[in-house]
Amino acid sequence: MNIKSTIVKVILCSILLISSSLNAQQTQYDLMPMPANIKAGNGKLLIDKNFSISLEGNYDERLNKEATRFLRRLDQKTGKFFIQHKVKGKTENAELVISVSQPGKVKLHEDESYAITVSATKIDLKAQTDLGAIRGLETLLQSIEVEEGNYYFKSLIINDNPRFAWRGLMMDVSRHYMPMDVIYRNIDAMAAVKLNVLHLHLSDDQGFRFQSKTFPKLTELASDGLYYTHQELREIIDYADQRGIRVMPEIDVPGHATAILVASPELGSKDTTYMLERYAGIFDPTLDPTKDEVYVFLKALFEEMSTIFTDEFFHIGGDENMGKHWTESKSIQAFKKKHNLADNHDLHTYFNIRLQKILSQMGRRTMGWEEIMSEKMPESAVIHSWRGENEGTVALKSLNDAAKAGYETILSNGYYLDLMYSTTDHYLVDPIPEGSGLTDEEKKRILGGEMCMWSELVVPETIDSRLWPRAAAIAERLWSPGSVNDVDDMYRRLQITGLELEGLGLKHYTARDVILRKLTKGHDITPLKTLVEVVEPMKGYTRNPGGTMYATYSPFTLWADAATADAKVAREFNHNVDLYLAGKLDENVLKEQLELWKTNHVKVLSLIERSPVLLEIKGLSENLSIISTIGLEAIAFIEKDIAPTAKWYETSKKSLEAARENGGRTELQVVSGIKMLVNQIEVSLKQ
Amino acid sequence: MNIKSTIVKVILCSILLISSSLNAQQTQYDLMPMPANIKAGNGKLLIDKNFSISLEGNYDERLNKEATRFLRRLDQKTGKFFIQHKVKGKTENAELVISVSQPGKVKLHEDESYAITVSATKIDLKAQTDLGAIRGLETLLQSIEVEEGNYYFKSLIINDNPRFAWRGLMMDVSRHYMPMDVIYRNIDAMAAVKLNVLHLHLSDDQGFRFQSKTFPKLTELASDGLYYTHQELREIIDYADQRGIRVMPEIDVPGHATAILVASPELGSKDTTYMLERYAGIFDPTLDPTKDEVYVFLKALFEEMSTIFTDEFFHIGGDENMGKHWTESKSIQAFKKKHNLADNHDLHTYFNIRLQKILSQMGRRTMGWEEIMSEKMPESAVIHSWRGENEGTVALKSLNDAAKAGYETILSNGYYLDLMYSTTDHYLVDPIPEGSGLTDEEKKRILGGEMCMWSELVVPETIDSRLWPRAAAIAERLWSPGSVNDVDDMYRRLQITGLELEGLGLKHYTARDVILRKLTKGHDITPLKTLVEVVEPMKGYTRNPGGTMYATYSPFTLWADAATADAKVAREFNHNVDLYLAGKLDENVLKEQLELWKTNHVKVLSLIERSPVLLEIKGLSENLSIISTIGLEAIAFIEKDIAPTAKWYETSKKSLEAARENGGRTELQVVSGIKMLVNQIEVSLKQ
Repeated sequence: MNIKSTIVKVILCSILLISSSLNAQQTQYDLMPMPANIKAGNGKLLIDKNFSISLEGNYDERLNKEATRFLRRLDQKTGKFFIQHKVKGKTENAELVISVSQPGKVKLHEDESYAITVSATKIDLKAQTDLGAIRGLETLLQSIEVEEGNYYFKSLIINDNPRFAWRGLMMDVSRHYMPMDVIYRNIDAMAAVKLNVLHLHLSDDQGFRFQSKTFPKLTELASDGLYYTHQELREIIDYADQRGIRVMPEIDVPGHATAILVASPELGSKDTTYMLERYAGIFDPTLDPTKDEVYVFLKALFEEMSTIFTDEFFHIGGDENMGKHWTESKSIQAFKKKHNLADNHDLHTYFNIRLQKILSQMGRRTMGWEEIMSEKMPESAVIHSWRGENEGTVALKSLNDAAKAGYETILSNGYYLDLMYSTTDHYLVDPIPEGSGLTDEEKKRILGGEMCMWSELVVPETIDSRLWPRAAAIAERLWSPGSVNDVDDMYRRLQITGLELEGLGLKHYTARDVILRKLTKGHDITPLKTLVEVVEPMKGYTRNPGGTMYATYSPFTLWADAATADAKVAREFNHNVDLYLAGKLDENVLKEQLELWKTNHVKVLSLIERSPVLLEIKGLSENLSIISTIGLEAIAFIEKDIAPTAKWYETSKKSLEAARENGGRTELQVVSGIKMLVNQIEVSLKQ
Repeated sequence: MNIKSTIVKVILCSILLISSSLNAQQTQYDLMPMPANIKAGNGKLLIDKNFSISLEGNYDERLNKEATRFLRRLDQKTGKFFIQHKVKGKTENAELVISVSQPGKVKLHEDESYAITVSATKIDLKAQTDLGAIRGLETLLQSIEVEEGNYYFKSLIINDNPRFAWRGLMMDVSRHYMPMDVIYRNIDAMAAVKLNVLHLHLSDDQGFRFQSKTFPKLTELASDGLYYTHQELREIIDYADQRGIRVMPEIDVPGHATAILVASPELGSKDTTYMLERYAGIFDPTLDPTKDEVYVFLKALFEEMSTIFTDEFFHIGGDENMGKHWTESKSIQAFKKKHNLADNHDLHTYFNIRLQKILSQMGRRTMGWEEIMSEKMPESAVIHSWRGENEGTVALKSLNDAAKAGYETILSNGYYLDLMYSTTDHYLVDPIPEGSGLTDEEKKRILGGEMCMWSELVVPETIDSRLWPRAAAIAERLWSPGSVNDVDDMYRRLQITGLELEGLGLKHYTARDVILRKLTKGHDITPLKTLVEVVEPMKGYTRNPGGTMYATYSPFTLWADAATADAKVAREFNHNVDLYLAGKLDENVLKEQLELWKTNHVKVLSLIERSPVLLEIKGLSENLSIISTIGLEAIAFIEKDIAPTAKWYETSKKSLEAARENGGRTELQVVSGIKMLVNQIEVSLKQ
């Protein structure tokens, strides 16, 4: 609760602060992320079937393909049946002229800047590298406008470049494997919002997803048959490269290593055998850092992987290593003594440094979760900040500590999308907020951020709806100037971006209806939609208490999986209550909504009767009906200026508290709005 | 038109004939395809979280996997979080006991029969082979019922086996390449309705999709980078095998061979170079059957392919070879003379026989489109009937001729799903109808049928909505007894099957909303849904006149692509008109519907204004409004027993005719219903 209320305060402050200074540009354009510099140009350009693209300068095949892809996406939007088929090179009289100085390399700190000038006859897209041009093409696709039956490229002049060089998405493909098509379409989505790093969390206690030919047992015994072949990973890397996105692998060691130990128990810290973990949580199986064969194994594995993953960075995990098996092992304790390692954290550092050397010899820089930071860790390592310091608050302490200690560092704390917080919560987390107190040198070490999609509760059918469109707001945080932080405008543009992403093939909107239809076997799902629109899955780690309510093979296409974070209808209702109480909204808007919710329960009951799988939401649906009735009564009291009885207060407040109870692992999001109505009466009565 | 009216008559007759003899079973169960024998059993079995599966007899890994997949699908439906994770073998006290006598082979004529007995404590699923068991599992998944808050397996006793051994789906992956995920999910759908052959049309004028390592130019020059690698094809074959489905490749020669000639122009009948075809139609480029190197090439290609495709059958195409380049070539004409080949058809046969010998040496049986049939063609070839004889009618002549001539044969005429006819049209095409006049021996040669999904106008985003759920009705035709042919009951069950398939991951329902949202950029799509529900894409080959309105790279996510064949709302409306005119339905049902359509146009107009891509449906939408007004007026005349003026007749009929005009390449499907209302007045007036 702490985190939420803090953030709410931050938002309110932000809105107050920004609204006065709000740059008019931010509401004028539908772009996301918002460019660094944008202003109106001299003329808009008509899009007709003769629209064509010319490539100039020094570029490579990647730009041909991306320009052609742009053309196909544009004719799907406009239905123009462009004559131009493939964009091959220089084309006379082309409407869009893309010129680049050199082919870009998909690597950290590559130039991604671009400039666009739209006139009535021509669009100039200029960039240092084709990667900049590719970013610019995404901006152009977002800048189409309609006037009198025609499509135009909006009149504008843009000079754009990213604020942070590292703008990533981590996908946990271990706890639930994600098929190739899920990866592909999410790379498309990443490119659409100018993200540039896909971090694949390939191993954990629940599964090892890299097909090792060096250690085939990892695939045979520790993957349940779900893994990426070398060829598939090459295709992912190619696909991402084509869109200007790096792919960084992670093998999480020494903890989170059950899958490795299933295949190679001799590498473990305990003399036992291991089974793939089917639940969620932090587990004891840990590699034994005192055994040379562990390093031999990891060196061979990393070498095999580095023939495929060509990125400069390699993530070694390193999180949540509790060292229980280390403490229990006499030989490990003896090793610590012998090597003067004070505690398990020292031993972990010893392990990390050895890995860092191995990777360094392979020309790779080591990255790890923030636990790898320690005095002895070389400064070339990149620190991945995920906890901040104070659990439960979005803090930048570990990020700042790393930067101050001379490490380059990435922020993920505040960007855990699997925890189902609102977009605002994530959007307002700035890796370098005003007044961070860091020197310019330290600020430069903060490379950017990565949003995380841990997959304990996420399957291929639902991952899009957990990622998108919220991820686009974080993408903006990492690309756009820090001053772009108007929450209302973000939500307005996010809706447009969400639709763009659906057009690209993402399933974040369709997944809901598919699940609800599945749950009702073809009956009208409208009552369920009415309900699901005002609930959100339980937040943080509350949905899966102890990590044991769900196994990896449990069904993840039930009620909570149809719900999404940041329920729009609820957010709007609560906002409308604010407006009403401020005298800025007619009560009928609220009454109509509350009437709908009040009467919805009967319809839900009839669906439950035919689909017992919905039994889990009976209370939830009833609660919505009950508190909607309270809301209606409260409005009547307010409107008629009548004081309710003490008994009414008592039962209303009790009901409102009871309505916070989860149903089907989701929570009603309109309790606070209705509570505000009730509180208002109390306030007016006291006056 | 001929084909349609014939079929309508057939339907009407069928309904009359069947309705009296209609087996009560057909309306009692929601199964599709309907089993050969089914009756109620002694008790229904409760599904709770302890539900588990035991495997007995002689089976292999395939059954373990399919039983586990069944368990996971069942717990998604019931939300029960089954304790059993993997189905490993014999399990004590299991609720479902599957026993098989031997592992099946995925080949023609394999035993697919199974028997199910459900009691209150146990389900017995017995089969000769695991393939039969896999078919039975699909039946079980369709037979869940709900009573008083619980899920049960319905009480039943089934003895089932397929009517035809060959139940196929041909996918044209040449004209538009279909990514792996499309293939996978369609294999899942095929298995759900007990289809057992996936026929991949891998080459045509527009693209060569098999990655040939022997002839890399085929991939480099003739695929646009869109092809299946050896590994991918192996994965498709494995995936299909796991579900009891054969995969048969097709290389279409000697016509439809432009893609081959792009890579190897020296194999062509004309001394020229070739370019990949971007339009649809029948084209001249043809392999030269007089050149030995053509056979060397095809032998090497077939040998490479046969290392991957292990199925007994290999399809060599052979359709629509017009032989224009043959006639134009002096050397080919000389060859014909020398070899005593009377005409181009004889030369084609000469070519086919040489291919047949090559394939035969590789242990493969040759299959080809019906043109390959000729006196000299060996009887081991399988004739693929696609034209019948009289163009435009669903005729069985070529099928029957083949059977009579001693060939085994497959029916596709009547099963072309890309032509957008109604499900009924396909459903009532029986490969061996009553009174076929064939001997038992000849009947045995009719192996079954294959539905065809040619992809001139189909892309990955829309293929599911072109295939499903209509394909399920053809699947029933090929599996179930011929007596299962009640159209109303088929439609009832098809709706249930359609939802089951969506639950499996098919996109046939979600594709529509995605396209409409894309076309409206986030505005409310309800008015478009109202309209799209009563239109169908232009039928037959009319949507793409001359094959040149659309290029392969044109946008295929526009209005017509959101429309589907067999518009349910229109079908129901027309049926309701029947009922109303027969005095069996209150006029208000019709009036409410007509009012909605009448007023819809204003809303559509407002969307068009914001989305010019919708301009193409302006007339269509207006027509719906106009004829709905006519319908309302007609009902008023009928109800009030007033005769309209001659002028009203004249303008109404003109408007109704005009409303047959396409809009956005779709046609209104309620013209006939409204016309019946108008006609009714004429009829009553004459009386």
